Amino acid sequence: MKKVIVLGAGMVGSAIAADLSTYCQVTSVDINSDNFDFLLAHNVQTIISDLSDTNNIKQLVAPFDLVVGAVPGFMGFQTVKAVIEANKNIVDISFFPEDAFLLDDLAKNHNVTAIVDCGVAPGMHNVILGYHAKRMKVTNFETLVGGLPLKRDFPFEYKAPFSPVDVVEEYTRPSRYVENSCLVTKPALSDPELIDFDEIGTLESFNTDGLRSLIYTMPDIPNMKEKTLRYPGHIRLIQALKVAGFFDENKINISGAEISPFDFTTKILFKSWKLGKQDEEFTVMRVVVQGIENDKPVKYTYNLLDRNNKVTGVSSMARTTGYACTSAVNLLINGKFDRIGICPPEYLGENEICFNAMLTYQFERDVIYRCIAE
Amino acid sequence: MKKVIVLGAGMVGSAIAADLSTYCQVTSVDINSDNFDFLLAHNVQTIISDLSDTNNIKQLVAPFDLVVGAVPGFMGFQTVKAVIEANKNIVDISFFPEDAFLLDDLAKNHNVTAIVDCGVAPGMHNVILGYHAKRMKVTNFETLVGGLPLKRDFPFEYKAPFSPVDVVEEYTRPSRYVENSCLVTKPALSDPELIDFDEIGTLESFNTDGLRSLIYTMPDIPNMKEKTLRYPGHIRLIQALKVAGFFDENKINISGAEISPFDFTTKILFKSWKLGKQDEEFTVMRVVVQGIENDKPVKYTYNLLDRNNKVTGVSSMARTTGYACTSAVNLLINGKFDRIGICPPEYLGENEICFNAMLTYQFERDVIYRCIAE
Repeated sequence: MKKVIVLGAGMVGSAIAADLSTYCQVTSVDINSDNFDFLLAHNVQTIISDLSDTNNIKQLVAPFDLVVGAVPGFMGFQTVKAVIEANKNIVDISFFPEDAFLLDDLAKNHNVTAIVDCGVAPGMHNVILGYHAKRMKVTNFETLVGGLPLKRDFPFEYKAPFSPVDVVEEYTRPSRYVENSCLVTKPALSDPELIDFDEIGTLESFNTDGLRSLIYTMPDIPNMKEKTLRYPGHIRLIQALKVAGFFDENKINISGAEISPFDFTTKILFKSWKLGKQDEEFTVMRVVVQGIENDKPVKYTYNLLDRNNKVTGVSSMARTTGYACTSAVNLLINGKFDRIGICPPEYLGENEICFNAMLTYQFERDVIYRCIAE
Repeated sequence: MKKVIVLGAGMVGSAIAADLSTYCQVTSVDINSDNFDFLLAHNVQTIISDLSDTNNIKQLVAPFDLVVGAVPGFMGFQTVKAVIEANKNIVDISFFPEDAFLLDDLAKNHNVTAIVDCGVAPGMHNVILGYHAKRMKVTNFETLVGGLPLKRDFPFEYKAPFSPVDVVEEYTRPSRYVENSCLVTKPALSDPELIDFDEIGTLESFNTDGLRSLIYTMPDIPNMKEKTLRYPGHIRLIQALKVAGFFDENKINISGAEISPFDFTTKILFKSWKLGKQDEEFTVMRVVVQGIENDKPVKYTYNLLDRNNKVTGVSSMARTTGYACTSAVNLLINGKFDRIGICPPEYLGENEICFNAMLTYQFERDVIYRCIAE
């Protein structure tokens, strides 16, 4: 049995550890022991430790065959760097904001495989595009993705499975997409569009900055776009808060204290958006890859609709992100993927064996990407 | 020439002083001298003084024939009380939250006439109802009223001519109306309804707690309602903020400081809702009085549509509220109204001479209540 260490035992990290525990010897590390009972029930060893200390990380990972990175985004880059310097392979789902390729030379010098962004989107949509881009001329790529609560509570009709700070940053960061081979930058929340989904109904899509590595690794695809999904109306409300100044970062004086509206508003939203342990939620994704294959126009549409597991209590966000990650861990453990350096998930998808193995692994856990070829 | 002192030189108070200066000797008092240049140009004497000190008020009013109260709402009650104790008649537009009739015995003992709530609504709609209730059996009374900017800026499409704190309090205080002779209390912002207005377009009405004295002085009218008007969508946005907790009064910890969301949000709204000196705005009101007169069903509809005066720079809010007030001052000066005690404006309307004089006075200043009888 391989020995795997999972850095971070949050909602997704602990689901990853529990899944890996069925075929690995797993240790989870976090400064917060909230999920340790769940982990111990899955025979996962637990360590309380401060992962913001990178020397600490290097010591922790030393005895292990493989590392999974599941720390908060702002700690992700330094964590991956420390693991590489400790000469360990890593699969990371921290979705850090920095450019992962800044660590590519380091990873190559240390002969390390570092798979980054290995969730749903980023993650599985990269895997899907990676697969098809090797086999056809892709002219259009579009991903629509969202994690939503089943119950639609006024006014936001939204629950955040992670920190509202990260969600609001997604709502304020300009978004980039590729159109006619040009990189287009649009304001956050732009291009709202109503889209119908079977079983769900009408959702609203809007531009988010989710292409990440694909902008650099897929220079020959003329049109690529990623949009996030919410219930209709959510975006207009966020837009209203934004225009009225509720997300301003410059501090203002309230009752004698200097407060940033951003800090205040995310605190209020934290209460309003809190996902309860028992709240039903789902993940919906539609990935469309269009182009020319064998001289014929083709269109591949992948649909994912996943719901939280009521028996195990594992949320859909944790299932879809976590099992995408563990399907990649499984490839490394079985020696099916051995590319050295920083590897965004499109590198996994290029390989047909890896692509099929990842889809099969997730299918066995009921995370099902249904493909329609036209 | 009568000597009148106007307590408060805010937007409405200074418009009142300027109007009275055409036929009285007027002195304005405020702790803030922002509008003193405007007042001096209208030959109004100015005094900088702290009106939160009631002994100060008593000294200030001593040399005058009549007092106008135009202080902020939270200071209104104590100001009227001090003026009564100084044995001076007063017309007040501070719209204080306390029950004015608590001062009725005091006013009677001091042989003082204290006209309160003498603006538009409360104010002129009381005058109109007072007039008709004396002359017919009123079965239905409804007022729709709003002050709005001409330019509709996303997201609120609203500018506050007074403090957002007072506006938000109107949005959070339960509203009371009379239906089938029962006093009904509904949540703030309830019963939104779209209503078309000539020249303006479609507005949205919602319940506000604006009946005030009418609930007690008109016990025989089975149906009475006051609703506020905004551009459609405003109320939903306010409701969203409210439900999400942005108006909560309990303090929360933000970056180490204890802050009430209410204080924070009104501060943000203050910036978003600030009415610029040059911003065009208007006041719209529709008052409907229905019932039986001379054994026949009748319906009187009064429509007001007033716009800011671009030449003098006086806002519509100041014009409509201020000239309602000065029309009552004019009645007192000319001895046309001499009822002792606390007098809400319906007491003025009961008297046909007063009613006609007030409408004529305002008509001469282009504030026109157009009546349709059906």
